[in-house]
Amino acid sequence: MSISAKVVILAGGQGSRFWPMSRSKKPKQFLSLGSSGKSLIRATADRVATLVSEENVWVVSNEQLKPLIAEHVPWAHVLCEPCARNTAPSIGLAAIELVSKDPKAVMIVLPADHSVANEDALNEVLREAVQIASTQDVLVTVGITPTQPNTGYGYIKRGGLLSGKAFRVNRFFEKPSLERAIKYLESGDFYWNSGMFVWRASEILRAIRDNLPDLYRVLEEYQLLSVQGKNEEAQAVFAKAESISIDFGVLEHAKNGVVIEAGNIGWSDVGSWDQWAAEFKHDKRGNHIQGDAVVIDSENCVVNAVHRMIAVVGGQDLVVVDSGDALLVCPRGRVQDVRKVVEELKARGRSELI
Amino acid sequence: MSISAKVVILAGGQGSRFWPMSRSKKPKQFLSLGSSGKSLIRATADRVATLVSEENVWVVSNEQLKPLIAEHVPWAHVLCEPCARNTAPSIGLAAIELVSKDPKAVMIVLPADHSVANEDALNEVLREAVQIASTQDVLVTVGITPTQPNTGYGYIKRGGLLSGKAFRVNRFFEKPSLERAIKYLESGDFYWNSGMFVWRASEILRAIRDNLPDLYRVLEEYQLLSVQGKNEEAQAVFAKAESISIDFGVLEHAKNGVVIEAGNIGWSDVGSWDQWAAEFKHDKRGNHIQGDAVVIDSENCVVNAVHRMIAVVGGQDLVVVDSGDALLVCPRGRVQDVRKVVEELKARGRSELI
Repeated sequence: MSISAKVVILAGGQGSRFWPMSRSKKPKQFLSLGSSGKSLIRATADRVATLVSEENVWVVSNEQLKPLIAEHVPWAHVLCEPCARNTAPSIGLAAIELVSKDPKAVMIVLPADHSVANEDALNEVLREAVQIASTQDVLVTVGITPTQPNTGYGYIKRGGLLSGKAFRVNRFFEKPSLERAIKYLESGDFYWNSGMFVWRASEILRAIRDNLPDLYRVLEEYQLLSVQGKNEEAQAVFAKAESISIDFGVLEHAKNGVVIEAGNIGWSDVGSWDQWAAEFKHDKRGNHIQGDAVVIDSENCVVNAVHRMIAVVGGQDLVVVDSGDALLVCPRGRVQDVRKVVEELKARGRSELI
Repeated sequence: MSISAKVVILAGGQGSRFWPMSRSKKPKQFLSLGSSGKSLIRATADRVATLVSEENVWVVSNEQLKPLIAEHVPWAHVLCEPCARNTAPSIGLAAIELVSKDPKAVMIVLPADHSVANEDALNEVLREAVQIASTQDVLVTVGITPTQPNTGYGYIKRGGLLSGKAFRVNRFFEKPSLERAIKYLESGDFYWNSGMFVWRASEILRAIRDNLPDLYRVLEEYQLLSVQGKNEEAQAVFAKAESISIDFGVLEHAKNGVVIEAGNIGWSDVGSWDQWAAEFKHDKRGNHIQGDAVVIDSENCVVNAVHRMIAVVGGQDLVVVDSGDALLVCPRGRVQDVRKVVEELKARGRSELI
């Protein structure tokens, strides 16, 4: 049964850690990185199809990616940001748009480039979150029960029980050290911050006004100028917005945070080639191989050879990914630094490769 | 000044350690792996141009490679082996051919796929070796003065002085352990076996007859059938020849071995991607990069990116070589095993890639 809420899919990201597959013209969210064969954004939209009807799906992205969004999620309304300014401005933009249509609108914010194995469990939690957010002045974050001491995720410590699976937020924590991550895991009071949020559009706008007043003014001004058809001026105003995440800029300071326990729903932010590979089957020696490859005397290697034959001999914990026009070789422990390649290519003016 | 000798270039090798560049249709000796830009075989032939005239250059290879030889060393006589049987049969074939034309012929045997920096020094040594071999019943091997405890080369221990830079061979040694290689280096009595030999054709045939009598009979029979124009039968006979190296089958047993000291002439057997890279300049962090590459936070990597952009992030001692249709990733310490890729591809019936 559909519920009365709007789904807002955040799809303006670059996904530069997925270079060379992810490119500015076709970033990570449009790649079929999951085992379903669907693009991550399509999978995200399909996942909530039983939750909200098609006319209630919004995608926040940019002008350049609009055709790709129309291809992957043709039913979605698209909100274009004039420029990329992280999640606080994106969410603010969506909130101000939704609230102008319906002052009581509840919005479900979903990153376009994550994966969730257990859709039903997710939707059950989102339903409960919508129920809470529509009746209470709270900001709900979906919390994932940690299964390992992951140092790549932010954590949320829960406070007192609100109702059902929902708890008051005690505190948000940035990506921890391994030592801390182990403690968080052992305590049982911590969740992974999934980047999925549920709140009334008006409530998050109030929180932005309280915690990021400059951004709030930008959003108001942008909205006004847009309505007046002054698009160039509107864009110039938006460009002034601070580039800041909703977590860091708002949620960490808000007093009305709630975390709803989603349990182990098989969620991943698909944050790197290493994590990506973890979603798939491996051979006896821990190698994950796709495509045309010869892998000899190697262990824990990730080889993506869909464009030409790749041979790995004596490889240990290596990621090798071929996009046809470019190839990446990187130890698994260094995949977070793949974005440095994109930066270097940018510095070299190699726009065709980024 | 030219001397009276025949140069016999052995060019039937597969060079499978240089996969993916080296292919059965264009093996290592036809690749421009040196800094000169010439193919290794052309560089080998050019190197002795001041030593012997063009009509005295022979290449032993096979029917398939004949057009490539004609392209790279158009002036050479080509002797085709019916099938690949290592160096003893190749050299025997050349010797029996040369002796039939001139019973006193002196032959200089040169591998087609090695590199020598100091040509003049090499030619001086070869002149001295020809002088010795033309007047004495000896089998001369060119010995290189070791500069490091290389475990990839065979060694020769010298005995008493014969004349000039020539010594009796005390013993041949196979590739040693590092411990032994260090001892050899320290002793000062050991040379690297360069695979370059000088002897009268009749003398090596006598040594083959004494040490590999079966091969000697094969060679005699092959010669006889060939002269009679019975090519198919001749080929069938040659196919019976044992696959054995001249070092292992003959020189290690011969009592009349001589090693001539070539000193440090900048010789390399260009035996692997690792050794290949050692011939070129490296950046401050020990990386050798050719072509279009972005190499970040990496040390001692060898990147050959002449077909598409290759990015290496956090690489340590990695070899990455792209041939356009195939790509190799291998730690420098494992480059000897690159041939395993070729074996695996053969087993998979991927003849287009080998």
